[in-house]
Amino acid sequence: MDFVINQTMLKTIITRDDEPPRALIYQENEAYSGVNKIVQKVRHDVERVLGCLPKVTTNKSELSAHAILYGTVDQSPMLEELEANKLINLSEIRGKREVYLFQVIEQPFEGVEKALVIAGSDKRGTIYGLFHLSERLGVSPLVNWNDVKPKRKNSFSLYGNLKYISKEPSVRYRGFFINDEWPAFGNWATENFGGFNAEMYDHVFELLLRLKGNYLWPAMWSARFSDEGPGLANAELADEYGVVMGASHHEPCLRYGEEYKYLRGEHSVYGDAWNFITNREGITKFWEDGLKRSGTFENVITVGMRGEQDTSIMGKEATLADNIGLLKDVIQTQNQLIKEHVNPDLSEVPRMLALYKEVEPFFYGDQDTPGLMGSEVLEDVILMLCDDNHGNLRTLPTEAMRSHKGGYGMYYHFDYHGGPISYEWVNSSYLPKIWEQMTMAYDFGVRDLWIVNVGDICTQEFPLSYFLDLAYDFDKWGTHALNKTDLYTKQWIEQQFAGVFQPDEMEDVFELLTGYTKIAHNRRPEHMNVDVYHPVNYNETDDLLQQIDELLDKAKKLYQSVDEVYLPAYFSLVYYPTVANLNLQKMWLLNGKNHYDAKLGKMEANNYADQVAACLKRDRELVEQYHAIAEGKWYGMGLSEHIGFVHWNEDECQNPIVMNVLPANKPRLVVTIDGTGQHSEGSPWHKNTLYLNDFLHPDVETASFTIASVSDKVADYQVTCEKPWLTCSKMQGRLDGQEKTSDVIDVHIDRSVLNGETEGEIVVEMPVGSCTIIVKVAQLDFTVYPEMTFVETNGYVSIEAEHFAVNKGKTNEEGTLNRFEVIKGYGKTLSAVKAFPTTAYFTIGKDAPYLDYHFAVKEDGIYEVELYMQPSNPVTRDGTISCGVQINEGDVNQVDLLPDGYRVDDHNWEAGVLNNIRKCYTMISCDKGLNTLRIYAMSPGFVLEKLVIYRKGHKPANSYLGPTECFYRMK
Amino acid sequence: MDFVINQTMLKTIITRDDEPPRALIYQENEAYSGVNKIVQKVRHDVERVLGCLPKVTTNKSELSAHAILYGTVDQSPMLEELEANKLINLSEIRGKREVYLFQVIEQPFEGVEKALVIAGSDKRGTIYGLFHLSERLGVSPLVNWNDVKPKRKNSFSLYGNLKYISKEPSVRYRGFFINDEWPAFGNWATENFGGFNAEMYDHVFELLLRLKGNYLWPAMWSARFSDEGPGLANAELADEYGVVMGASHHEPCLRYGEEYKYLRGEHSVYGDAWNFITNREGITKFWEDGLKRSGTFENVITVGMRGEQDTSIMGKEATLADNIGLLKDVIQTQNQLIKEHVNPDLSEVPRMLALYKEVEPFFYGDQDTPGLMGSEVLEDVILMLCDDNHGNLRTLPTEAMRSHKGGYGMYYHFDYHGGPISYEWVNSSYLPKIWEQMTMAYDFGVRDLWIVNVGDICTQEFPLSYFLDLAYDFDKWGTHALNKTDLYTKQWIEQQFAGVFQPDEMEDVFELLTGYTKIAHNRRPEHMNVDVYHPVNYNETDDLLQQIDELLDKAKKLYQSVDEVYLPAYFSLVYYPTVANLNLQKMWLLNGKNHYDAKLGKMEANNYADQVAACLKRDRELVEQYHAIAEGKWYGMGLSEHIGFVHWNEDECQNPIVMNVLPANKPRLVVTIDGTGQHSEGSPWHKNTLYLNDFLHPDVETASFTIASVSDKVADYQVTCEKPWLTCSKMQGRLDGQEKTSDVIDVHIDRSVLNGETEGEIVVEMPVGSCTIIVKVAQLDFTVYPEMTFVETNGYVSIEAEHFAVNKGKTNEEGTLNRFEVIKGYGKTLSAVKAFPTTAYFTIGKDAPYLDYHFAVKEDGIYEVELYMQPSNPVTRDGTISCGVQINEGDVNQVDLLPDGYRVDDHNWEAGVLNNIRKCYTMISCDKGLNTLRIYAMSPGFVLEKLVIYRKGHKPANSYLGPTECFYRMK
Repeated sequence: MDFVINQTMLKTIITRDDEPPRALIYQENEAYSGVNKIVQKVRHDVERVLGCLPKVTTNKSELSAHAILYGTVDQSPMLEELEANKLINLSEIRGKREVYLFQVIEQPFEGVEKALVIAGSDKRGTIYGLFHLSERLGVSPLVNWNDVKPKRKNSFSLYGNLKYISKEPSVRYRGFFINDEWPAFGNWATENFGGFNAEMYDHVFELLLRLKGNYLWPAMWSARFSDEGPGLANAELADEYGVVMGASHHEPCLRYGEEYKYLRGEHSVYGDAWNFITNREGITKFWEDGLKRSGTFENVITVGMRGEQDTSIMGKEATLADNIGLLKDVIQTQNQLIKEHVNPDLSEVPRMLALYKEVEPFFYGDQDTPGLMGSEVLEDVILMLCDDNHGNLRTLPTEAMRSHKGGYGMYYHFDYHGGPISYEWVNSSYLPKIWEQMTMAYDFGVRDLWIVNVGDICTQEFPLSYFLDLAYDFDKWGTHALNKTDLYTKQWIEQQFAGVFQPDEMEDVFELLTGYTKIAHNRRPEHMNVDVYHPVNYNETDDLLQQIDELLDKAKKLYQSVDEVYLPAYFSLVYYPTVANLNLQKMWLLNGKNHYDAKLGKMEANNYADQVAACLKRDRELVEQYHAIAEGKWYGMGLSEHIGFVHWNEDECQNPIVMNVLPANKPRLVVTIDGTGQHSEGSPWHKNTLYLNDFLHPDVETASFTIASVSDKVADYQVTCEKPWLTCSKMQGRLDGQEKTSDVIDVHIDRSVLNGETEGEIVVEMPVGSCTIIVKVAQLDFTVYPEMTFVETNGYVSIEAEHFAVNKGKTNEEGTLNRFEVIKGYGKTLSAVKAFPTTAYFTIGKDAPYLDYHFAVKEDGIYEVELYMQPSNPVTRDGTISCGVQINEGDVNQVDLLPDGYRVDDHNWEAGVLNNIRKCYTMISCDKGLNTLRIYAMSPGFVLEKLVIYRKGHKPANSYLGPTECFYRMK
Repeated sequence: MDFVINQTMLKTIITRDDEPPRALIYQENEAYSGVNKIVQKVRHDVERVLGCLPKVTTNKSELSAHAILYGTVDQSPMLEELEANKLINLSEIRGKREVYLFQVIEQPFEGVEKALVIAGSDKRGTIYGLFHLSERLGVSPLVNWNDVKPKRKNSFSLYGNLKYISKEPSVRYRGFFINDEWPAFGNWATENFGGFNAEMYDHVFELLLRLKGNYLWPAMWSARFSDEGPGLANAELADEYGVVMGASHHEPCLRYGEEYKYLRGEHSVYGDAWNFITNREGITKFWEDGLKRSGTFENVITVGMRGEQDTSIMGKEATLADNIGLLKDVIQTQNQLIKEHVNPDLSEVPRMLALYKEVEPFFYGDQDTPGLMGSEVLEDVILMLCDDNHGNLRTLPTEAMRSHKGGYGMYYHFDYHGGPISYEWVNSSYLPKIWEQMTMAYDFGVRDLWIVNVGDICTQEFPLSYFLDLAYDFDKWGTHALNKTDLYTKQWIEQQFAGVFQPDEMEDVFELLTGYTKIAHNRRPEHMNVDVYHPVNYNETDDLLQQIDELLDKAKKLYQSVDEVYLPAYFSLVYYPTVANLNLQKMWLLNGKNHYDAKLGKMEANNYADQVAACLKRDRELVEQYHAIAEGKWYGMGLSEHIGFVHWNEDECQNPIVMNVLPANKPRLVVTIDGTGQHSEGSPWHKNTLYLNDFLHPDVETASFTIASVSDKVADYQVTCEKPWLTCSKMQGRLDGQEKTSDVIDVHIDRSVLNGETEGEIVVEMPVGSCTIIVKVAQLDFTVYPEMTFVETNGYVSIEAEHFAVNKGKTNEEGTLNRFEVIKGYGKTLSAVKAFPTTAYFTIGKDAPYLDYHFAVKEDGIYEVELYMQPSNPVTRDGTISCGVQINEGDVNQVDLLPDGYRVDDHNWEAGVLNNIRKCYTMISCDKGLNTLRIYAMSPGFVLEKLVIYRKGHKPANSYLGPTECFYRMK
């Protein structure tokens, strides 16, 4: 017999007077108060699904026939009773971390036929178990945060023999950081809750716990978590819920950043200088009081010290040894205070030191000066590493360092207020990147603390869910779950929209989420500007515009069809992040075309100018709608500036400048070859011959050119072409320069009647001038080459990294396979390849895996190879990223993939994180005809997306995404 | 008793029946028919002034009491009779070149009391004499071409004892070239005359002769002078009038460029190749027939040969010797043909060889290969030199070369169809430049032929008059007439507008003509674009805009007040060239501000965008009005493209691109320091401190900053300043970003209350941000320095060349003074200095004149000196331009003022002719405090405008005109 909850039961409980009211849920007085608060949330989840609010009782006799029993090991006489009655076995969870037993049992008590037992190994175990019930009910973890309405049911049942024991979470501390909370989060909190108080944090804690996180850094830009609850209410609530509070890298001893500002002063006991040298006593007292105040709560206590406002602590004159000495002194002092005021056994107090900015050199030291690494003051302290603020890991623990007892943490970013350009507006994180980076972190032993900066939280729900799920269950989603981000996405969509959308609509939502995040992965919206994508080369702007318009159409269709009950969830989780993001990308792309066409004098520029203005208007409307929907539930969350950054932050940011052309005084037309920068008005004195080279690509059958107005006068044109193998879609036309400003002429080739010809001619006659288009055709025999051979066309060979001819793995000393794997979708144009194990350094000729690429070129000579890679940072200090490059049977050339002197924060790094690509150039000597390029993996962090090969000095036309892939003989 | 013509006389002659009609003018049958045709024009001049058309008679007895007698020496029995009667003395003019006697005599014949005798030494002498009468009557030489209406008179008289003998013209052949005649001249000729026929040329010849020219190169781009009269009518009419016909450098033997195209062919007697090697016979025959056809007319016959369409004749493989040999062969052949068909005495046949483009090296040869210089084939041939097509002379005859018997010619340009950018639309030539260049040509012995390319003629009337007057009377206007171009201009204005304008209006016309030509001298309108002038630095754009607006106001005022009878002359000679020119300059300047402001996000950018569009509209309206006025008299003359050249010619030229800003979403303001590129919105994270450095200049009492809207939202600002010595014109204000988008705040300094302070602060509070302006003040004691000492302010010393402290001349071997002279107005900002004699090379320490400049700097060290010079070319092949630079008592440094490898047509030259400036950099070592910089003249062509001195590596802010002059202690 199943365990069942149904409407009839619940209604009976509530409405019938003829029998005593029955309760679904049994509550003990011994239970954690926080757990009991969570039960209240789960009661409401049951009501959301089944329509009636179940009753809770502390009297077993009031329970209904099917009841829910919950408790925490060692905090529950009831559980002990059940165990004594052999109905459950608590030893399976006892002593474990955050684990719960979820079991259906029979007749635990008189009158109760079936009971669902939710038993936690500890407070959070019980809470996760309770929310596990909500999830089984079909309630999304985002139910409250995003107004996700679950599917209504009449009845809910669990198999009678159900017994499920959760795993210990993979990562010990898993959470997020509400950062840089103004203007968005701050306005939201103020409007909806009256401030950064406990009511607001209850909302945030619920989100965290439902997502199976356990750790939080609160807002601290202007807010004081420990003061504004009011008073300690925030901290007390966190502790009640089992939310472990942390603080950022520069907030030691449970004191938040802004506190000192409020407490310092000439007559303050804490002195008036954030300086451990000149104000040791005051600062120590400040820390001591912080520990006294909050030390009884569950915390990860930050140790160490930084200057105010994220600056370094000692002056420029100080030596490395001075700094290290000071930091050691600081930590020693802090450890002593913690012993005195928190717990004499330091090993039981979770502590954290951030290896961030200038603390990093103090940790490592140099040849002459030993750093803090291995120092007894850091025993049991979690060493927190961080990414480069833009989602790329930096240094990771070396094999030797991994034995550090305190373990390691990672501070990752989905949102950042800083250089080269902030991104704080709307989600732009891409799951495959999070997977690639965070699995590497885990592989490198970073398993004790994962914290992600989510800025204002809103619009980050999707990647945040993924981040916390990955941290909670690394076995399921981690390194071995290669290419499962799409699966995750589909499950996540199901979680939010089961019962809302039809399967094809679910697929549309999937395309929206993967589509917008992939586009944002190529360039974050805040990092867009008019000059990012090339307006014409390789049609990259037009192709992206088309892709965006298709996505916008889908988003709109769903927007129009979704039931209004579900609109807020759809709007906040899908529509707004997608449309706001894509509309902005579109605006800049159109602006690029506007500028480009204006410089050619094309009247179309003015249409583009209007479209740019329309996109800007749309941007404002979207934010306003976001602020108004669901009765202002997300009011304020769209307030971050996001357009046209000229500095690293939003100051003096600029809307697009639109260019308008003033029409020429003659009926002039201009011919452009689509996908190229070629243009001509047909003057005999200047360039009036253009080249249509698309048909050099053997697989291209249709190409095009465009005729456009340069004036607002009526202008006729005529197209002539005498080759039987070429067809133009239009042979004459008229543009008026006002309503009709351009015609695209498609050119179709019929290769079957080529008869050995390699060149044709199309002539365009215009009122002023006449232009000749030379059409080039390649006549090549590809069958002479092996499969997967790329052929040089139009001056270059462009190869997507996954299109190797050979992928050769090598068995390593541990007996596993060193190998390249394809990471689907991870790449600006197609995908990426990365070597595994991710922690390994490989030796060429011994255990290094490699990839072979076949390609054919027209001439002997020196060629340049551009390697397009993820902008990874080296995993060690002073390290680099290398690969081996070998052409044909030549020597292997070890290529350093980072520019000389590369460091995070330099210009190369800036280009990398903005462009989300790093290009490395090397030279190879090619034979005429077939060549094989072999790429060996050598060091961690080498993630290759694309290869472009061309004769030395003959760089292909400029673009953002690189030349489109060339033709190749498929397998 | 005076010689008198009055209305009563003329009316009597015509209207009274009671006595036989009396004639004013006596005409002989022996007179040249062309002279008689000129008399008809002069009759009409008399009519224009006195209101009645005088009668002409061949019967002395019909003459009135006061009569006009004209004739040419040896072609006039009447003159001989008068000479025999001792009434005139022809020996005073006989044998002279183009001279006339203009004398009042008494009772030459029965019934004639007084006669004005106009006797020419030759045909042109007589014609000039006749037109001299017109001029005395107050008729402008432009009477017909420009519809210049003379002042009406009742009576005209000459002193009874008047006897005037004109001088021989200074330059033998003086004329202009109608070049590149489409679209303007061609449309004009077709519309008004039906083609390039004799009726049209009558109009042109009259203009030439009235301007005292004698030489013409006809339109030859598409037109064939010798065919389209119809037939030979054009050539015959020219010969009748005494107009000596020439042809351009590549049109030998009286054959015009287009003729061969019409006559060549497979079966043509002239063959089908413009090649003296492969088609010697055909080409020779072609020349022979040309000489036979036109050899009887007065011509300067071009000799030599170039390839078709201005290309070189032999291929690239040919050696120098090959080429020289061929050219010699060509000229020998041509000389032989001329002997046979024109005149056996070659010395009597004016011939010309152009030393142009590739012919130049053939003339000079090299070390191994003697050139054509001194060859007997060139005996008596005028060697025609040329400028660089942009008004700067190139090679000039060396002293040795000046003895060449044939003499030298100069081909000069007021209009050019060629690189780097054509200028064919409207006059942009500046009299001081023409004076400086053409007097140098004359000084170097170029005195036999001056021809100027005037394109379509129209709008060139002003400089053309000057050019021909200079050539006609070099004594009056030439080298010794330093700084008389203003005088010339005033006389010229008087000539056109006597009786039309009041004296203050005449002054306005003077300012218009000098104003617009000076501005065009700084940058020709066709060469303008959005990036020429800096939109803010040194306020150069704003200053020029103000100057332009003042001129446009003056032009408009005159336009509104001028009597409609005189409007066509005012319009064509003053209004149109001025306004069309300035409106275009203004359009680009506004466009520069539009782009600049748009990049700052200033709402004002949109106002500028509208103004740019208005200027473009105005440009079209002006051309249309020019085409319509005076019943279409100048129809077509405005058709040349003139906006936004992207190539050397007008193909694909571009109207300005206007930038529009989309308002920011907050009430943002931006503060800019006028005259500098500094700007801030007042963000504390970025630049919010600006510097107002104007008061470092001791003579500056008012400076300003501007507050401007970045959004369309209402924004208030507040200005605070606590220094008693600083006053701001406004302390608060409100901008709405729509109607009111900016406020200029004037800052006034009262140095009398400074009390030793050197720094003040102005704070601007805005809705978003707050900006601090640091006001720097210099407190310097200037009395310690000698007079004319410049003081380093704001990081540089900028000195106008005429503000030397010492101008030291040296007496040369000929006993005259080697010296610098100031050429007023000749310079982009003030004037220029040039050494005289212009032909001299000077030796430093011996006969080199020099200038001393005093200046004081704040620190010892190496300084850069920028010399701003006219973009002169060296006067010898392979020569350079040098000067000597000496600082304090240091060694003299001989500075080569041309970049290495400089040649006409290279990029440096292109920059020079477009910018009309050449900057040369040299280093000097300065002492702290006072320094003296001495500049020695060394070679011809050194014309210095300005000096800018600054610490090495501390270049002052970028600009087109250079930093404005610094303060100096005046004399």
